[in-house]
Amino acid sequence: MKKLINDPLKVADELLQGLVEAYNGDCLSVGTRSIVKSNIPDGKVALLVGGGSGHEPIYHGLVGENLADGAACGDIFAAPPPDIVLEATEAVNQGNGVLYLYGNYAGDVMNFDLGAELAEDEDINVRTVLIWDDVCSAPPTEKRKRRGIAGLVPIVKLVGAASQRAGSLEELEATARKAVLQTRSVGVSMEPGAIPATGKPTFELDEDKIGLGMGIHGEPGVAEIPMTTADDLTPQMLDLIVQDFASDEEVAALSKGDEVILFVNSLGATTMMECLICLRKAKEYLSEKGIKIYDVMVGPLVTCQEMAGISFSLTRLDDELKKYWDMPCQSVCYSKMDGHHGG
Amino acid sequence: MKKLINDPLKVADELLQGLVEAYNGDCLSVGTRSIVKSNIPDGKVALLVGGGSGHEPIYHGLVGENLADGAACGDIFAAPPPDIVLEATEAVNQGNGVLYLYGNYAGDVMNFDLGAELAEDEDINVRTVLIWDDVCSAPPTEKRKRRGIAGLVPIVKLVGAASQRAGSLEELEATARKAVLQTRSVGVSMEPGAIPATGKPTFELDEDKIGLGMGIHGEPGVAEIPMTTADDLTPQMLDLIVQDFASDEEVAALSKGDEVILFVNSLGATTMMECLICLRKAKEYLSEKGIKIYDVMVGPLVTCQEMAGISFSLTRLDDELKKYWDMPCQSVCYSKMDGHHGG
Repeated sequence: MKKLINDPLKVADELLQGLVEAYNGDCLSVGTRSIVKSNIPDGKVALLVGGGSGHEPIYHGLVGENLADGAACGDIFAAPPPDIVLEATEAVNQGNGVLYLYGNYAGDVMNFDLGAELAEDEDINVRTVLIWDDVCSAPPTEKRKRRGIAGLVPIVKLVGAASQRAGSLEELEATARKAVLQTRSVGVSMEPGAIPATGKPTFELDEDKIGLGMGIHGEPGVAEIPMTTADDLTPQMLDLIVQDFASDEEVAALSKGDEVILFVNSLGATTMMECLICLRKAKEYLSEKGIKIYDVMVGPLVTCQEMAGISFSLTRLDDELKKYWDMPCQSVCYSKMDGHHGG
Repeated sequence: MKKLINDPLKVADELLQGLVEAYNGDCLSVGTRSIVKSNIPDGKVALLVGGGSGHEPIYHGLVGENLADGAACGDIFAAPPPDIVLEATEAVNQGNGVLYLYGNYAGDVMNFDLGAELAEDEDINVRTVLIWDDVCSAPPTEKRKRRGIAGLVPIVKLVGAASQRAGSLEELEATARKAVLQTRSVGVSMEPGAIPATGKPTFELDEDKIGLGMGIHGEPGVAEIPMTTADDLTPQMLDLIVQDFASDEEVAALSKGDEVILFVNSLGATTMMECLICLRKAKEYLSEKGIKIYDVMVGPLVTCQEMAGISFSLTRLDDELKKYWDMPCQSVCYSKMDGHHGG
């Protein structure tokens, strides 16, 4: 695999420098490896995201207008260490607390928690909401042990908008918990990407097999199934999401009249063509159940280098979340014009 | 290569169905294989784009708010036939003419020209502006023989915004000609993508070689060079653009104080990480010349399946073009909040 990089050990730093240039003044580089909006209003309840690099445009591409205020960036596939979490926290803090919102991975939890302790020592009030949307990574009874995958994009979009209006950290935390609870994802992998520093594949998978429920770094899923068609695979994946909502006592089953954000994500090399063909089938599947698509996201937003794979995420909206969805936003990862939610 | 599709011969139709779902009401499918905005104001000077499928999210993903009014969509890597150009023309026409704006490929020119003749038979006034931004595909003295590559995205963004304000087809045509004249691109390829119907690679390239100036379907460029670093390759590519502006008698050389849109495009499998690392070097290169980056686009917008490769495009702005750039837009390919141009 020919990677267009320089020193393989400096990719995380150099891509972050490029990201800051992509923001062209809207965001600044802070400290060792954080990115922060250049204008955060005084007193705003702040939203901090973060995680390992190598999944671009997330996580640090989600900083922006009506999105996150900052991101603490780790090395490739590695959590940001506590000092980086702290530097990002100090930079986004405007005196009314900081919400940490990130994917549930052991390394991230450990480091963000240590960062929060350091921040509390400086009298910065921190709350944490973990994203655990990957339904294949633990059963419904242990859903808070699940990994965070592509569902983080609609969640950060909603919570970022909410953070513009939140009167308190507790209020923003409650909105974030709701957005997480109403978001579920299922992913598959077909081919690994390459680790930038070594050129080695991120995982192994038999030829002609699909890893159903496989994580974005190749973590085990629910099954290896034979390679199949878009129209065969899409309902299998969406069934897992629908079953998960139905078997979770904390939420209602997905039912007729519900309104959802549908996100079809490519893990990298899977083409937009393939995403659109699967999206076509997903729309048919949801229509048959009377579930209304409020808006659609599609594309390679949560990637693992040039890994081939796809995921579906559904976020059920209520009136509060719809209001936040409708707000415009702007970032390297995702942008949206005012009032547009596709019809 | 495991492609997540159904019938390989139906991918162009099925991806278009998915694209219409992605627009979720903002755009509709028309006729055999066209996509058109659902609300085009009466009397608007219409903008029609189009070309072969397989390069998603372009070309048909560029239909949207303040962008193109419609797209005529061909089969995979094939021009739309004249009847499809005609059906799209009829659908976007609001009585004040239709501007065709598309990449300069022989098949597209032949088919769009035939479509224009059919439209003129129905008293629809059509003008055509070809996009020929690929500086490596013909010398400066024959620049109108060049291919259209990634530069079409900033060009359609500008002309789409201009079409909202244009008082006549002639006025819009003049703006489009200016945007084309001020846009130049250079691309490289590292690895081919796979043709959906056969799984075969789109071209061949020696291992450890980069095709400098290679087209988006593997068309020959200026040289095969050894695989190298991001920091070595980026200035080589930008030099070609700068030299091209300097050697063209129709435009001024790029010089200190000029303001440009910088677009770093991935051909598919090249990661956002790599694009950002190259963007970092491109910013340094342009800064040294005193060229100001007005805004940045980055990501896989003009692709050739899971081909690995990257291109740089520069569009020089004047006051008129800046006004159009600043307008918000919304589509599957590219969206932008009001007034945002990165600082």
